[in-house]
Amino acid sequence: MAVIRRRVASRGLAAGEKLPSIRALARQMQVSPSTVVEAYDRLVAEGLVRARPGSGFYVAGFAPAALHAEPAPPRDRAIDPFWVSRQSLDAAPGTLRPGCGWLPPDWMPAPVIRRALRTLARAEPGVLADYGATRGSPALRALIARRSVADGIEIGAEQVLLTSSGTQAVDLVCRLLLEPGDTVLVDDPCYFNFLATLRTHRMQLVSVPYSPTGPDLDAFAEALARHRPRLYLTNTALHNPTGATLAPAVAHRLLSLAAAHHLTIVEDEIFADFEPDPTPRLAALDGLARVIRIGSFSKTLSASIRCGYVVARPDIVERLIDLQVATQFGGPGPMAAEIVATTLADGCYRRHLAELRTRLARQRQDVAARLGTLGIVPWTVPRGGFYLWCRLPGQRDAADVARAALREGVVLAPGNVFSLAQSATGLMRFNVAQMNDAAFRVLRNALDG
Amino acid sequence: MAVIRRRVASRGLAAGEKLPSIRALARQMQVSPSTVVEAYDRLVAEGLVRARPGSGFYVAGFAPAALHAEPAPPRDRAIDPFWVSRQSLDAAPGTLRPGCGWLPPDWMPAPVIRRALRTLARAEPGVLADYGATRGSPALRALIARRSVADGIEIGAEQVLLTSSGTQAVDLVCRLLLEPGDTVLVDDPCYFNFLATLRTHRMQLVSVPYSPTGPDLDAFAEALARHRPRLYLTNTALHNPTGATLAPAVAHRLLSLAAAHHLTIVEDEIFADFEPDPTPRLAALDGLARVIRIGSFSKTLSASIRCGYVVARPDIVERLIDLQVATQFGGPGPMAAEIVATTLADGCYRRHLAELRTRLARQRQDVAARLGTLGIVPWTVPRGGFYLWCRLPGQRDAADVARAALREGVVLAPGNVFSLAQSATGLMRFNVAQMNDAAFRVLRNALDG
Repeated sequence: MAVIRRRVASRGLAAGEKLPSIRALARQMQVSPSTVVEAYDRLVAEGLVRARPGSGFYVAGFAPAALHAEPAPPRDRAIDPFWVSRQSLDAAPGTLRPGCGWLPPDWMPAPVIRRALRTLARAEPGVLADYGATRGSPALRALIARRSVADGIEIGAEQVLLTSSGTQAVDLVCRLLLEPGDTVLVDDPCYFNFLATLRTHRMQLVSVPYSPTGPDLDAFAEALARHRPRLYLTNTALHNPTGATLAPAVAHRLLSLAAAHHLTIVEDEIFADFEPDPTPRLAALDGLARVIRIGSFSKTLSASIRCGYVVARPDIVERLIDLQVATQFGGPGPMAAEIVATTLADGCYRRHLAELRTRLARQRQDVAARLGTLGIVPWTVPRGGFYLWCRLPGQRDAADVARAALREGVVLAPGNVFSLAQSATGLMRFNVAQMNDAAFRVLRNALDG
Repeated sequence: MAVIRRRVASRGLAAGEKLPSIRALARQMQVSPSTVVEAYDRLVAEGLVRARPGSGFYVAGFAPAALHAEPAPPRDRAIDPFWVSRQSLDAAPGTLRPGCGWLPPDWMPAPVIRRALRTLARAEPGVLADYGATRGSPALRALIARRSVADGIEIGAEQVLLTSSGTQAVDLVCRLLLEPGDTVLVDDPCYFNFLATLRTHRMQLVSVPYSPTGPDLDAFAEALARHRPRLYLTNTALHNPTGATLAPAVAHRLLSLAAAHHLTIVEDEIFADFEPDPTPRLAALDGLARVIRIGSFSKTLSASIRCGYVVARPDIVERLIDLQVATQFGGPGPMAAEIVATTLADGCYRRHLAELRTRLARQRQDVAARLGTLGIVPWTVPRGGFYLWCRLPGQRDAADVARAALREGVVLAPGNVFSLAQSATGLMRFNVAQMNDAAFRVLRNALDG
């Protein structure tokens, strides 16, 4: 490869010129012909060489461009709902990310995924090559249906639609049910990407303050009467960013209000598996009449697999299938679904969750104590998960603190990215699993600065 | 597992009741405690049993619903652009699918994918668990950029955005560039799912007749002048469904017209790797000024991996990233990208393509000859790929023939699903790799019927 590269670089071989034959070069270099074939193949993959079937190998028409350095995420961007996600996802290696929404890789069950991949390597050719059914893998949908039944939602596997992610599930449902200009209700604070998704749909957004037991019901009732929203998008189980849990009485009243106002509720329970014991689901109370359930395995198993799901009424699922074919030609492929199904089916996922919950409970306590020494106080004490939604000391603006921390290579999640009403200036969401000594040091400096 | 299942079924164990302790059941059954743990874990995964951390195992609140049979795709549905995709994707096992848009699994390189999966099983934890960068895997984007450079499109890896599929790439670009009510130009015939995607966007659609060398240029110029479309969505390399190739002179004239009318072109070259030798790309002629390039590995490597890409100007890529975060929280995960990158990097993909092209050339010839005996005549002779776009004999309506064939378990692709103007009543697209004796028998009967 080096020989050919040098000749091209020195123009000894010009663009379009034929490379030495495999046999000739093998003789000249005193290597086997198969070594030359391998080298030529790799040069083809690199784009330097082009293979012409039946004719031989040629120098490609253009020299490959020098690979530019990856552009870093723009740092001067306004602190909007994309700020945290773009900074976290595209962070340079070594960046600390207490602002991000996922666990570090060493908290995730790598051995379980490795085993599932080795099993997958022996799967039938159809699993490896085909698109699969429009709803997604029947085996995984059956497992999700059984989990739903255990939560009190009586469904069959045909009421589960697999999607590429929880976010894509939310997007798909919004696309089906909403018209541009419709009003959508969200919590204040809410998961920041809900705001990004809904703005893509050109929705009118209205927010209702979230309390430690769920949305403020008076404000919720008033918003329904005044703005006539079509949809309410919320996290249940463990609310993002607060970590709060919906109280049963609030859930019941919420559903009564929704019924009276013909409101559809999208219940994203992506953090459900972090709950120490399951709380009532809106979908279970409502029987899926006006609730659509959304989930994913990105937080507890792997975000790299890319697999979410929608559980809904059969008529809604049927229409979502068409929409997913039109916009993605189906959901996750059979391979991704197989990795998840293998993991769920044999109990190792449950054991991983049990360990994770224990480890996170300890970590939440430790981090809350250390934040306390900086005067940072949790807004509520979550029952599970990896978030602490906290008030900063001394009227500090969380956006200023986040900007200062980013200069030191630490991505934080300032409160207002979660707040439509911009009511969370002094609040910040911390991912306890991403906090370490260095992050605390930078945080202390940023607070002092 | 059987013991517990029986006790629950017979109500010997009621909903909510605690299961025997692991030690007690192990003693009673004379098995090891780890065997009982394994059985309980599997029952948890099935949803029959619920684990309460620190307390034990309990019968779940609801018995799992009997798994309903999967609903078959509705057969009475109108023959619209979804007809072929839904029937093909959800076909019962054993259904023949000469109407579908992919190769049978035994034409795809299963050993290559198996090897890539075994390699992936040894990857770093971050690859297995993380979301990865917003543009997608740098390694795969570098390979795609090099392939683009070899095609004469001078870009760096930062101008490549990975997507879940070619379709999702089209959808994402439409979402970014179009407003509801905008006019979009398509070919007549065109890939049927383009029509489905664009209708999702509530676009005004205008079609231009496709000739064996590309769109009819007079009709194209007239459509630009009359309808002022914002975007032209087309397949180059090998056009779907016709298998035709854009002639260089047509490509040049097309770009001149596009420039004069401020038209953006989306060039989907998903079948490019089937070409015996590469033809000029609109993106290469235009230098990506007004062309956006889209591709995927679903047709040549695996549709199960779910990985497509967009190649575009840096400013467009930057805006597409936000949109993909908002609607999917990123593209394909690092695992999917790693499978593709492993395959592309070591030359086995190129060898697979060479074999595939040879095998398909023979198959196209054989199938064309056998179709000829039924009076079915190709509209053009494609240079590559697996489609033959053919005229049926004796004024037969392809939709009638397709309906008759479906009753015999064969999915065909009648012409009008590809035609906005419904100009292809007597035409049909055949996937030569999916044609066998049984399919020919049913086709003959359907033509006679």
